[in-house]
Amino acid sequence: MAQIYERVALIGLGLIAGSMALAIRRNGLAGEVTGYARTEATRETARRIALVDRVCDTAVEAVKGADLVVLCVPPGAMGAVARDIGPHLKPGATVTDVGSVKQAVISAVGPHLGPEIHFVPGHPLAGTEHSGPESGFATLFVNRWCILTPEAHTERAAVENLTALWQGMGANVDEMDAEHHDLVLAVTSHTPHLIAYTMVGVADDLRRVTDSEVIKYSASGFRDFTRIAASDPTMWRDVFLTNKDATLEVLGRFTEELFALQRAIRQGDGELLFDYFTRTRAIRRGIIEAGQDTAAPDFGRVGPKS
Amino acid sequence: MAQIYERVALIGLGLIAGSMALAIRRNGLAGEVTGYARTEATRETARRIALVDRVCDTAVEAVKGADLVVLCVPPGAMGAVARDIGPHLKPGATVTDVGSVKQAVISAVGPHLGPEIHFVPGHPLAGTEHSGPESGFATLFVNRWCILTPEAHTERAAVENLTALWQGMGANVDEMDAEHHDLVLAVTSHTPHLIAYTMVGVADDLRRVTDSEVIKYSASGFRDFTRIAASDPTMWRDVFLTNKDATLEVLGRFTEELFALQRAIRQGDGELLFDYFTRTRAIRRGIIEAGQDTAAPDFGRVGPKS
Repeated sequence: MAQIYERVALIGLGLIAGSMALAIRRNGLAGEVTGYARTEATRETARRIALVDRVCDTAVEAVKGADLVVLCVPPGAMGAVARDIGPHLKPGATVTDVGSVKQAVISAVGPHLGPEIHFVPGHPLAGTEHSGPESGFATLFVNRWCILTPEAHTERAAVENLTALWQGMGANVDEMDAEHHDLVLAVTSHTPHLIAYTMVGVADDLRRVTDSEVIKYSASGFRDFTRIAASDPTMWRDVFLTNKDATLEVLGRFTEELFALQRAIRQGDGELLFDYFTRTRAIRRGIIEAGQDTAAPDFGRVGPKS
Repeated sequence: MAQIYERVALIGLGLIAGSMALAIRRNGLAGEVTGYARTEATRETARRIALVDRVCDTAVEAVKGADLVVLCVPPGAMGAVARDIGPHLKPGATVTDVGSVKQAVISAVGPHLGPEIHFVPGHPLAGTEHSGPESGFATLFVNRWCILTPEAHTERAAVENLTALWQGMGANVDEMDAEHHDLVLAVTSHTPHLIAYTMVGVADDLRRVTDSEVIKYSASGFRDFTRIAASDPTMWRDVFLTNKDATLEVLGRFTEELFALQRAIRQGDGELLFDYFTRTRAIRRGIIEAGQDTAAPDFGRVGPKS
């Protein structure tokens, strides 16, 4: 694949940045990749496993001369990083990010970037429940979506280069406005995560059922919630604090709907329950047809049919 | 493995019965397995794939001379089946079931069984989102738990034989009383399923986000909910109608907890959110250590580390 950027700087070296570094290298998408992480321990690890070509001790050093700077820190830390590096960016460089919320990141980062910088906010919809520089892998983005939310005045060439980079790493790229992104993600990601966290918290806390019972019997449904409830606490705290309005809107709809089902259970309305459960099956089929999950029973955690 | 029963009758030929038939055959646990399903179509399919040794056209015929009768129909249908077969059971036979709720099944089935019948209610905590006679596989129960809820006066030999059958199919067996079972399952299975159904329903119904967006971007968390929300609607309707009290109790705790987190989001209480999300990570670790899920990122749906 053709090289797209001469130099790419990754600020923050966790799961996403690590996977980008490996995917960029494997696909020959950049001449050099530099990296910076806040803690000495993470920088050490990144050096030991040669995650990027050069691990720098400051963010300023990492972005020097970079054509593309990717902010891979939790949403709540984006503003401070942008303030630090803003004055040191190469004129004409593109800045993007991988944050799970877009409006708040744009408000925090935008003011620190000069008029000669192209700011193209982004969000790859990919991840696992693991975090840290050693959790990345080159194929994380394959057949996953990356959403870009550039403003109308942004130079198209900058958007197109970034699109080519994500496509080069195997992703599909969509564009939408930041507000719509935040609502779509509140539905497909943020509210599901909050609900999973809540369910796991309730199970942990119920006096009449022990933790060891919850763990032993988790294959009956509960364990499907625990993977996403094991995601990085710092990132998720920031997501909820920065995508407050959309999350609260979807949560409001969720509790309304939950109360309707709860009432049906209390009143013994089997017809309502049956119709509801039939409708939700169709969504699952759509996801499998779109290649966003496997139809293998139980995600392939059980043996093959025999 | 040694044969445990001369003749086993499976009433209802869906995922669980189909898997039992294959596991019993593979491990040589019974001399003959008969089967009955309510619809002609299911019986035809079962005959075509030779799921059991003999597919019968009535439940009465299937249980004739059986040493073990396994009721594999939805919880709401157990009572009617028991009434039909009750007078035709072999004296000294054991009757068990695989229903996801126990108190309601015991109330529905118990009165139809004579004093010479050993009733040992059971519940294998295993399944996939698929249903029907062709969805079964012989390894479904391997390293999964099966909970038996016999009453104190039940003959131990009957409980021990049934335990040996489940162990012969690869399962671990626990005993507890029916009321506790229903509460444990309300936490680990029934409430998680209701919540997953609700979340999928909300996503399907939100006017400002299209179904195709929900499907495209589901890898960001939502899809983990859709597998369990694709489970059999009839069975789940019955589960909620028959385990009403325990489900409503856990749902009450769930909404209480959800409101606390919602309030923290509204008030910007990052510390509460961070602490909560850190605590739930530990439960996930427990599940992996107990062998009830894999630590592979994203359930192995993504490529290996590279």
